[in-house]
Amino acid sequence: MKQISLLGASGSIGVQTLDVIKQHPDLFQLVAFSVGSNVPAAAEIIKDFSPKAVSVKSKEDCDTLKRQFPASKIRFSYGEEGLVDIATHEEAEIVVNAVMGSVGLVPTLHAIECKKTIALANKETLVTAGHIVMAAAKRHGVSILPVDSEHSAIYQCLQGENEKNIQSLILTASGGSFRDKSRKELEGVTVADALNHPNWSMGAKITIDSATMMNKGLEVIEAHWLFDIPYEDIQVVLHRESVIHSMVEFHDTSVMAQLGTPDMKVPIQYALSYPDRFEHKSGKRLSLTDFGKLHFEKMDFERFRCLHFAYEAGITGGTMPTVLNAANEMAVDAFLNGKIEFLTIEDLIDKTMKRHAVQLNPDLQTIKEVDLETREFVRSLTD
Amino acid sequence: MKQISLLGASGSIGVQTLDVIKQHPDLFQLVAFSVGSNVPAAAEIIKDFSPKAVSVKSKEDCDTLKRQFPASKIRFSYGEEGLVDIATHEEAEIVVNAVMGSVGLVPTLHAIECKKTIALANKETLVTAGHIVMAAAKRHGVSILPVDSEHSAIYQCLQGENEKNIQSLILTASGGSFRDKSRKELEGVTVADALNHPNWSMGAKITIDSATMMNKGLEVIEAHWLFDIPYEDIQVVLHRESVIHSMVEFHDTSVMAQLGTPDMKVPIQYALSYPDRFEHKSGKRLSLTDFGKLHFEKMDFERFRCLHFAYEAGITGGTMPTVLNAANEMAVDAFLNGKIEFLTIEDLIDKTMKRHAVQLNPDLQTIKEVDLETREFVRSLTD
Repeated sequence: MKQISLLGASGSIGVQTLDVIKQHPDLFQLVAFSVGSNVPAAAEIIKDFSPKAVSVKSKEDCDTLKRQFPASKIRFSYGEEGLVDIATHEEAEIVVNAVMGSVGLVPTLHAIECKKTIALANKETLVTAGHIVMAAAKRHGVSILPVDSEHSAIYQCLQGENEKNIQSLILTASGGSFRDKSRKELEGVTVADALNHPNWSMGAKITIDSATMMNKGLEVIEAHWLFDIPYEDIQVVLHRESVIHSMVEFHDTSVMAQLGTPDMKVPIQYALSYPDRFEHKSGKRLSLTDFGKLHFEKMDFERFRCLHFAYEAGITGGTMPTVLNAANEMAVDAFLNGKIEFLTIEDLIDKTMKRHAVQLNPDLQTIKEVDLETREFVRSLTD
Repeated sequence: MKQISLLGASGSIGVQTLDVIKQHPDLFQLVAFSVGSNVPAAAEIIKDFSPKAVSVKSKEDCDTLKRQFPASKIRFSYGEEGLVDIATHEEAEIVVNAVMGSVGLVPTLHAIECKKTIALANKETLVTAGHIVMAAAKRHGVSILPVDSEHSAIYQCLQGENEKNIQSLILTASGGSFRDKSRKELEGVTVADALNHPNWSMGAKITIDSATMMNKGLEVIEAHWLFDIPYEDIQVVLHRESVIHSMVEFHDTSVMAQLGTPDMKVPIQYALSYPDRFEHKSGKRLSLTDFGKLHFEKMDFERFRCLHFAYEAGITGGTMPTVLNAANEMAVDAFLNGKIEFLTIEDLIDKTMKRHAVQLNPDLQTIKEVDLETREFVRSLTD
C-alpha cells in the first residue's frame, strides 16, 4: 500500500489523481491533501478518502472545514505552511505536486528534504528553479517522476537504458486549438476559440499555453532539467493526433516512443505505480488502425514565437525562465479576461524578456523577487 | 572486447554483422565463423578479421581453404560438425546465428549448452523447435537476443519492464511488394515483381515471404516463443512505412514502440552491444517530419492467407509449425524456379498442413523427419 500526499487535489490533475487512487484501493492510499479555496471539494475528498491531514489556502476556509468535521482526527492547516505540512507528511511516500503556479516550488523542496518521491505536475517548479530542485533531488537521492504525458513518455522510454546513449529527446506537440491558422488568421481569435483544444481536455491556462505553444516551450525547459539534456538536443515535432506522447532518440539511431490515447490518468498512474505498471481498467486501448494515419510536421518557430522565446529563455538560463513564465502567466490572464488580443501575449513576453537583466544561478529569494517584479511590469502594460 | 562467433557469415545478415564488428574494432572481435560454399568470401573474411576457427559446408571447400592459408593457425572444419565447432568455440561469448534454414537448429542448441549468449537471426530455430530451444535457454540461463527488426523492437520495448504487465505484442508488417494488389491482381505476378520489396533490401526467400506475409506469420510464431505470449495477444498491423518496427502494449494502456530507418545493422548491433547501445556512425537518423505521415491498416487474413496459416500452425503447435515452414520453403523455392504461380504457394501450404497428423511436443528427431517428409510431399506436387 503506497501512501500518497496530493497537493492541488481539486484541480484537473488532482481530480484525476484521486480517480487513480480510487481505482486501486488495495495499492494506493491518500494520506494527505491540499486544495486552494474549494471547500466543498475538500469536504467530499475527506468523506471519500479519510485522509490524516488537509490543507487549504486561507485560515477562514480552514476554520470552516474544522467545524464541518468536529470529531475527526484530521490535522487541518492553511497557507504556505499548510502546503509544506502536506508535502512533508510523515506517512507519505510519494508527493503528487499538482498545484498551479509558483506556489508549488517551496513545498517540493521541503518534500525532497524529507526524501519523499516527487510526482511532479507543477511546471513552475522546474521552469523557474530547475537548477535548485534537481540539485536537491540528487543530494537527497530522491526521484522526480514527471506526471505530464510528454515527460512521462520520455521517462518510460528511458527505462532500462543508459542516459549516456541519448542522442536527442523528441517532444511531440498537438499544435493546440489554432494549429491550422496562419498568424494573420490569429488576429481576430476569441477566448472561446482558444479554449477549444482538439485532443486534450485541460484547464484554461494550459489550453491557452497549448494554443500559443508556450506549453511546449515550458516542457522543453522541464525536459532539460529532468533529463539533463542540452537544449540543442531537445526537438519539438508537430504531431496533431497526440498519439505518440514523446520519444527518445539514441546514438545507435534507434528511437523509442511511448504511445496511447489522450488520458492523463496513464502518466499519473505510472508515476504512482513506478517502477511497476498497474492495470488501468477504465482506460481506452489505443488502436492505430482506427487512426489510420499519424502526421508529423516540422515546428515553425516564426509561427509559434512562444516556443522560440522558451528555447531562448532556457539557453540564457538564470532568472530568464522565471521572467518567461511570469510574463506568460500574466499575459494569458489578461487575454482570458478580455484585456488583450491573443497575439499580444507574445508581444508582452518578448518585451518583458528583452528588458530583463539576467541574474545567473539565482537563489529562491531572487527567483521570487524577479517573479513579482515581472508580474508588476506586465500588469502595468495590461491594466 | 566481446568475442563473437558468426554462423552464416556470407549471407545478408552475416555480411552486415561483419560490418558492425568492423565499425567497432575496439569493442567486438570475430573469433570464429562459418559460410556455406562461398569460399572466396571465407578467404576475404579470414584476411580481414584473422579468426581462430572457420567452417564451410563441404570437405572439398575446407581443403581448398586450408591450402589457401597453409601457415595459419586457424582451426578449419566442415559440415554440421563444423557448424557446431563454430557455435561452441571456447572463446566466443556470443553466437550470431544467421544461417538459413533448419541447419541452424542443432548448433544453436549446442551453443546454449555451452552457455553462449545467442543472437538469433535463424527463423527455423524457434519456428520448428521453440519449445526445445526456449526450455534449454531457461535451463542454462542463456539469453536469446533477437536480431530481426520486429523482435529486436519488442525486446527494446521490454527493457526495464515487467513481462507480467504485457497486454499484447503488436508486430508491424510493411505488406511486402504486393501490399496494394488484390488477390485477383496477384494472379499474374512474376518473380521479378515479387523480389522488388518497397522498404528493405533482403535475400530472395525472405522477400517472397514478405510478399506472401508468411514472413510475418513466422515472426508471430517466433514472438510467441521468445516472449512467452499467447497467440491471441499477438497482433499484426499493416504499416507500410516500416518506421515503427514493432510495439508492446501494457495493461495500463501504455504502448511502447521502437522506431528507426530500415537498417538491419541497428538490431544486429543492439544484440551485440546489449544491454548497452553503441554509436552507429554510418546509420541514418530517423526524421518523422520527412515522412510526414505514418499509415496503419488492419491486417486482412483473407488477403494474406499465409498469415492465417501461421497463426493456425502456431496455435495447433507440435509438429505443425515445422510443416508450415518446410512447405513454405519448398513452395517459395518452386516459385523462384518458375515451377508454380505466386498464389500456388498458399495452396501448397494449405494442402500440406491439412494432410498432416500433428504430433505434440516433438523431439529433434521427429522434427527432422516431419521436415523431410513435408519437403518430399511438396516436391512431389511441384516437380
